Amino acid sequence: MTRTSAEKELELPPGTAPVVILVEPQLAENIGMTARAMANFGLSELRLVNPKNGWPKKGVREAASGATHVLDDAHIFASVEEAIADLHCVFATTARERGQMKRVFAPDEAMADLVGREGQRCGILFGRERVGLTNDEVSLADAIITFPVSPDFPSLNLAQAVLLVGYEWRKASGRARLPFSGEMLSPPATREAMVALFTNLEAALDAAGFYPPEKRGGITRNMRDMLHRMALNEQDVRTFQGALRAISRAMKS
Amino acid sequence: MTRTSAEKELELPPGTAPVVILVEPQLAENIGMTARAMANFGLSELRLVNPKNGWPKKGVREAASGATHVLDDAHIFASVEEAIADLHCVFATTARERGQMKRVFAPDEAMADLVGREGQRCGILFGRERVGLTNDEVSLADAIITFPVSPDFPSLNLAQAVLLVGYEWRKASGRARLPFSGEMLSPPATREAMVALFTNLEAALDAAGFYPPEKRGGITRNMRDMLHRMALNEQDVRTFQGALRAISRAMKS
Repeated sequence: MTRTSAEKELELPPGTAPVVILVEPQLAENIGMTARAMANFGLSELRLVNPKNGWPKKGVREAASGATHVLDDAHIFASVEEAIADLHCVFATTARERGQMKRVFAPDEAMADLVGREGQRCGILFGRERVGLTNDEVSLADAIITFPVSPDFPSLNLAQAVLLVGYEWRKASGRARLPFSGEMLSPPATREAMVALFTNLEAALDAAGFYPPEKRGGITRNMRDMLHRMALNEQDVRTFQGALRAISRAMKS
Repeated sequence: MTRTSAEKELELPPGTAPVVILVEPQLAENIGMTARAMANFGLSELRLVNPKNGWPKKGVREAASGATHVLDDAHIFASVEEAIADLHCVFATTARERGQMKRVFAPDEAMADLVGREGQRCGILFGRERVGLTNDEVSLADAIITFPVSPDFPSLNLAQAVLLVGYEWRKASGRARLPFSGEMLSPPATREAMVALFTNLEAALDAAGFYPPEKRGGITRNMRDMLHRMALNEQDVRTFQGALRAISRAMKS
């Protein structure tokens, strides 16, 4: 996708987005997909606490599908305490109740809180693939984030959890612009153009012998309403009128 | 996670959630992760149009991490037209402008529209991993969904796109309950309990010789405010009072 300079300006400098902290992640696939999910929503700072079986991992760059800048800038830490030391605010993600008297937020609520903390650097802790964060690690966080998953199948993939947080951060921070809009390429049709279309359509259907005479009024009003529902623009009416002219000519020949 | 019957009742029957339609998906990993993402948010109906290199694919069940019911119930179609035939409303996901005069929605807007279509069955088209949907396939849809991704890294993984749509459907349909809440396990402390805590804390600090006499008033008021910011509950106050008693005893001995 090519980008205009206006779009580029909309991206704010790093440091404003939250830091993503993966605690003892195991699978290269998940770390790579985490980097990709972060880049999708403008997050860039990744920290890894004791990645299992060492770092860098084989296959992690392939899984990142081009988001290698996130991996290249990732920092490794020996403990959660060290990984969060410079932050002002930390959220811990967990799927289970911990019996800790802690605030619990959905991702959108948490990111609204985070965005409101002007001048603070915030981080989000994500636990091990199978067992999540320990209770002691959760106790280092200001508050908990949990996801509104189906109770029938609550097991969320690590990179998917990161994606949802990144997506909600982008929305909460006012950056959630769509890459293109559905603006009509032509202005709405004037009512004069619509009445001319009705006239030509009804003349073509008269010529084709479509209307039972006693029902012409009702059918005509219903068809006009179908056309109203289409919310036609000027270009649409020109296309429609052209098709009617071609059909009318063909019927006469 | 064990589920209570109350939680089970919150899940509505299938048919109300949108159908997910993958058009010529290639990678088993993506199809399996799609099934998992669907199950996470209560979607269950998966349709595949001409999966590349046949079906079932090797490795797809492993990638679904237990969401095999979605894969087992998946239906295969030879064309998009057949895959959407019984639906009343179809959205096409795309990352690029198509020059089609079509409504363009963010995932949350699209799911709000979809949830409002009572009694209609709706489906969402997701294109091929590399090239997405063709323009002709997009033209079969009522409207477009696109994602508010960073212009610096817009390439969203297929299963991640499905995840975001499923997540927003769950929110829009009022099912986005968290698996647990942050309700305090103990009622808020009464102001009588707080004043008793202030008294004991200040007595302990007096006994320890902490306060410069001329600053006692100001420091005391600041510390009382710190305690107010903690929004303590009854259990918190009991824990705090116990700690103060232990410290006071230790200072006297």
